[in-house]
Amino acid sequence: MSRLADEMNKQEPDFYIQGILKGDVAILSRAITLVESTKETNLELAHNILRGLRIGTEKSFRLGITGVPGVGKSTFIEGFGKEVIKRGHRLAVLAIDPSSQKSKGSILGDKTRMEELSTLPGVFIRPSPSGNSLGGVARSTYETILLCEAAGYDYIIVETVGVGQSEIAMSKITDFFLLLMLAGAGDELQGIKRGIMEMADALVITKADGDNINKAKAARTEYAQAMHLLQQPESGWTSRTMTCSALTNDGIAEIYDMVEEYRRFVLANGFFPARREQQKLSLLKDAIDQHLKAQFYSNPRVQERLKNARPEEIADPFGFARKLLTDFLKKG
Amino acid sequence: MSRLADEMNKQEPDFYIQGILKGDVAILSRAITLVESTKETNLELAHNILRGLRIGTEKSFRLGITGVPGVGKSTFIEGFGKEVIKRGHRLAVLAIDPSSQKSKGSILGDKTRMEELSTLPGVFIRPSPSGNSLGGVARSTYETILLCEAAGYDYIIVETVGVGQSEIAMSKITDFFLLLMLAGAGDELQGIKRGIMEMADALVITKADGDNINKAKAARTEYAQAMHLLQQPESGWTSRTMTCSALTNDGIAEIYDMVEEYRRFVLANGFFPARREQQKLSLLKDAIDQHLKAQFYSNPRVQERLKNARPEEIADPFGFARKLLTDFLKKG
Repeated sequence: MSRLADEMNKQEPDFYIQGILKGDVAILSRAITLVESTKETNLELAHNILRGLRIGTEKSFRLGITGVPGVGKSTFIEGFGKEVIKRGHRLAVLAIDPSSQKSKGSILGDKTRMEELSTLPGVFIRPSPSGNSLGGVARSTYETILLCEAAGYDYIIVETVGVGQSEIAMSKITDFFLLLMLAGAGDELQGIKRGIMEMADALVITKADGDNINKAKAARTEYAQAMHLLQQPESGWTSRTMTCSALTNDGIAEIYDMVEEYRRFVLANGFFPARREQQKLSLLKDAIDQHLKAQFYSNPRVQERLKNARPEEIADPFGFARKLLTDFLKKG
Repeated sequence: MSRLADEMNKQEPDFYIQGILKGDVAILSRAITLVESTKETNLELAHNILRGLRIGTEKSFRLGITGVPGVGKSTFIEGFGKEVIKRGHRLAVLAIDPSSQKSKGSILGDKTRMEELSTLPGVFIRPSPSGNSLGGVARSTYETILLCEAAGYDYIIVETVGVGQSEIAMSKITDFFLLLMLAGAGDELQGIKRGIMEMADALVITKADGDNINKAKAARTEYAQAMHLLQQPESGWTSRTMTCSALTNDGIAEIYDMVEEYRRFVLANGFFPARREQQKLSLLKDAIDQHLKAQFYSNPRVQERLKNARPEEIADPFGFARKLLTDFLKKG
């Protein structure tokens, strides 16, 4: 991956910009590889490409989907994605993979899990980045969204496994938070925390088919009551609880319509553009934090000083920090 | 306060260092005022004093006490503090006041709440800082601890109102986490979150006297069961549940002994010094973060660039951050 990125680095930004604007999938993929790189020169090229694309379209919709392993995320996305295409969109499916930080494998890595969807025209599926990307999981996924939008994909699905931090990252870069749940597994078992349920714009009980239908309906009622007691999203939207089956396709079109209803709702009340703006500022703040720390801790003099810190320096951490900072900023 | 600090600024560090080492309470108080200042020159003097004191004693014990308003923190500390003095210690009582960040009043501000304790020899009570201190609530309280220890106070009580963030700040600078609870008020009512209970080394039900005794004992049993199910502290210590009455003094000596048992336990298994070390490194990390951000956002060129940021710059937050950083570090 890294050698490939180095080779691509020889191209001018304009090569990528023109390719992406034409919707060239191969060039789009290579630009995403740059975005996922951890190498400074590759990232610089990536940002020159992003700048040249004059990104910032508000015409797209970004749907975040989460749920614990086994809830049926891939199967849901396969069914839901076909509906998205049927309604006339071009769809990109991306993933935030928390495990990638430890290089532990990858969700969405196995494209065959979405065999049918991946062969449809107008669908772009990108497996998770394989390594730890500079600036956290949110950065490379966010920039991948921007590249896909510039390439003409107007419906973006971002998938993540529900394990805590990654949902927060997901909510920072998507417009809608869809939480998939299983019937009868219990909140604790599913590892779903109250905070995550409060983030959800909709909760969907999967596998509502065959013998499981009644259990799913009961779970829906139960979760609807639980959601009712939780703090509602600040958009003014009332969060929904629904069931679906990726097997029979029951409920899939209804979920698509519900998401569209949300979209009209937040466009009408101004929340949609306001939130996009707020997300960008929040990402900027995160990015500044990350860059500041990266620059500081990679500074050789700082490293030297930290390595050889005397006990009495550590005993006064705030005083020591101020001295380190003064040194760091003096000669850069 | 600020004018007073400015005046004190005219003294050399050595004036404070000698005064504190002699246990001069007036000079100690003035040094704490420096630590609580938000003015750069005052803080510089404060850190010169701290450095000169060759701080870092591990002979002290730092007890953190929290609980919601009305649980009887002051009354408990009044009774418990007298026990601490009886056992031969010199005691300093400090406060982390989350409300002070909004300049909203102050816990411990009313010294008369600890009327008897405050008149005992060997007791130093310091009200909360009145304003927002640079570097968050933890910094000035931590440095106040260091000053008090240098002045010969070997038992430090840090009090805070239980509202979330302040407990986390408290746990970063104390050795023991004591959570005060009322009987019969219910977890939700008391605003006590599971996370806070998991941080507690001991939970004490207050006001176990008169008609309230049986209710307190029942609550103790109930909380003991709840605590049993929670994750235990990483020290290896089994968290305790006790009752006490500041009115009758029942349980106060037992709580003192229990804390001493903890102290022996964590000294024997090495957790005590290891945690102190880890706390310092964690404070250093926090301090670096805070200083970096403060330096960055107060830079005039950065402020100018952020104020006049174009939409296409904000649309690529990570690219924009990297440009801002490069500018910031170039001419510092």
